[in-house]
Amino acid sequence: MQVAVLAGGVGGARLCHGLYRLQPEGLSLVVNTGDDFRLHGLAISPDLDTVLYTLAEWANPVQGWGLRDETWNCAQQLTQLGGESWFRLGDRDLATHLFRTHQLDQGLSLTRVMQQLAARAGLPTDLLWPMCDGQVRTKLRLSEGWVDFQDYFVKRQHTDRVLQCRYEGADQIPPTEGVVTALLAADRIVLAPSNPYLSLLPILSLQGMAALWPQLRARKVAVSPMIGTRAVKGPLASLLDSLGHPVSSLGIAQLLRDWIDVLIIDSGDTHLQPQIEALGLQVGLTPTLMKDTEDRERLARVTLDV
Amino acid sequence: MQVAVLAGGVGGARLCHGLYRLQPEGLSLVVNTGDDFRLHGLAISPDLDTVLYTLAEWANPVQGWGLRDETWNCAQQLTQLGGESWFRLGDRDLATHLFRTHQLDQGLSLTRVMQQLAARAGLPTDLLWPMCDGQVRTKLRLSEGWVDFQDYFVKRQHTDRVLQCRYEGADQIPPTEGVVTALLAADRIVLAPSNPYLSLLPILSLQGMAALWPQLRARKVAVSPMIGTRAVKGPLASLLDSLGHPVSSLGIAQLLRDWIDVLIIDSGDTHLQPQIEALGLQVGLTPTLMKDTEDRERLARVTLDV
Repeated sequence: MQVAVLAGGVGGARLCHGLYRLQPEGLSLVVNTGDDFRLHGLAISPDLDTVLYTLAEWANPVQGWGLRDETWNCAQQLTQLGGESWFRLGDRDLATHLFRTHQLDQGLSLTRVMQQLAARAGLPTDLLWPMCDGQVRTKLRLSEGWVDFQDYFVKRQHTDRVLQCRYEGADQIPPTEGVVTALLAADRIVLAPSNPYLSLLPILSLQGMAALWPQLRARKVAVSPMIGTRAVKGPLASLLDSLGHPVSSLGIAQLLRDWIDVLIIDSGDTHLQPQIEALGLQVGLTPTLMKDTEDRERLARVTLDV
Repeated sequence: MQVAVLAGGVGGARLCHGLYRLQPEGLSLVVNTGDDFRLHGLAISPDLDTVLYTLAEWANPVQGWGLRDETWNCAQQLTQLGGESWFRLGDRDLATHLFRTHQLDQGLSLTRVMQQLAARAGLPTDLLWPMCDGQVRTKLRLSEGWVDFQDYFVKRQHTDRVLQCRYEGADQIPPTEGVVTALLAADRIVLAPSNPYLSLLPILSLQGMAALWPQLRARKVAVSPMIGTRAVKGPLASLLDSLGHPVSSLGIAQLLRDWIDVLIIDSGDTHLQPQIEALGLQVGLTPTLMKDTEDRERLARVTLDV
């Protein structure tokens, strides 16, 4: 079965890992780049790297992002030199950013750079796809105005109330040819349990995506990142609340209803099934929390079998 | 006394440190940038950093360059990712390069960037002067043709025979205004015990330097980096030999005779005094090996008193 996944963030990376362990061939991971930014001149792609590190089994197992056995000597010295210190770059992680920045500055596409990084990580080169090679930037409106994603997420530690999201540039930048090909070829499209506002909608907002979507023959299955009224990680509950959706998998269903056939929700949320079905979606019920590799594989299996 | 120093490399940095300890005010260190290069997109200034780290007392005391308590995790990871690994960047050292590269890419001059780094290192901001803000590149002709300095020095570990040196761009790039001002104001100009071919002549080859030199009122004193027939560090002996100069302080005297009034040579080299004086130079005799901070201060004192 040809499978394409839309993903971003730690939860998304974990499901990608489960799918990769089930079927390393015929898998295309389309990853959000709306959070990408430059720091000290370095091109940083947080979601791509989280997926890369997770699949290479290089990721820090506790925090889910960054590299295991990481050290922070460069960041510490940079602080002493008066560099920006709100986003701490690990010493090993820096190698990825240096490699990427140098290749991008020499004119290679992000797609091509990630293929090289994937190869070096022992992964197939047709696995990891940046959603686009242009610059889409997720912006959030807080009470004091629009800010960049990293400003909201890291610098302010996502404590502000978000009043609006937009994906700057998305209406003018199409998905890459590789992404379109993967979506057209897919028998199954999986929307990973990633924050819809911050990871999935940036991908779905790309130029031409709304027109492409109905042409795709794949069955489209999303895994809700909500368990009860809580997100496994990050500010999703607060975003659902401030942006006017129910703080539960029902909110996720409302957000994604035009894009999916099936929503997989946590088995503790059975009570939401009738309301989600009323939106025209099929519901899958299964434990959705991924604590270990077995959980990842089991949930991945459900997304393929449902 | 206003003192200007021309320097590059570890020996130069050590004498600069001695001078700085004697008189932190009224001191201008003009540093070679002919070895500067880009690696992984990062702007690296080896001689400036060696002087910065040595004066800040951050330098690795054994190797003389780089930072103390350095780690190499980024370099190790970069090798794994397939990046160039012939020049290993320490994790802490990387912070300097990231800081500099980012500031340069935003349009600041190297002079201005080094002022900021000096300030962060607790040094005066009018102390450390890149010889120029343009791009002069030391090139060496080996049997197979011209190569970049770092190619010769690090990648090939300076084992090749050098047939010729040139300082690409030097004839079109003047010293900075700060350098010219410091030289004009100086009562004493010290040419540090640095490799003349690789550190001093790049500075002296800058556009307008030959015309400026006779206008300078300062007494000009060089310290020879040769002790007997050996250089304290690096490939100087081999360069003197292949480029047709005596492999001793006499060779240094021949190279620098048009630029200095006094050459300080090691007290073990008394026998060279008549030949050096025959070139029209005054000779100073003193132990020139700098093993510790006291040696640095003592030698610095000689350069001021001679």
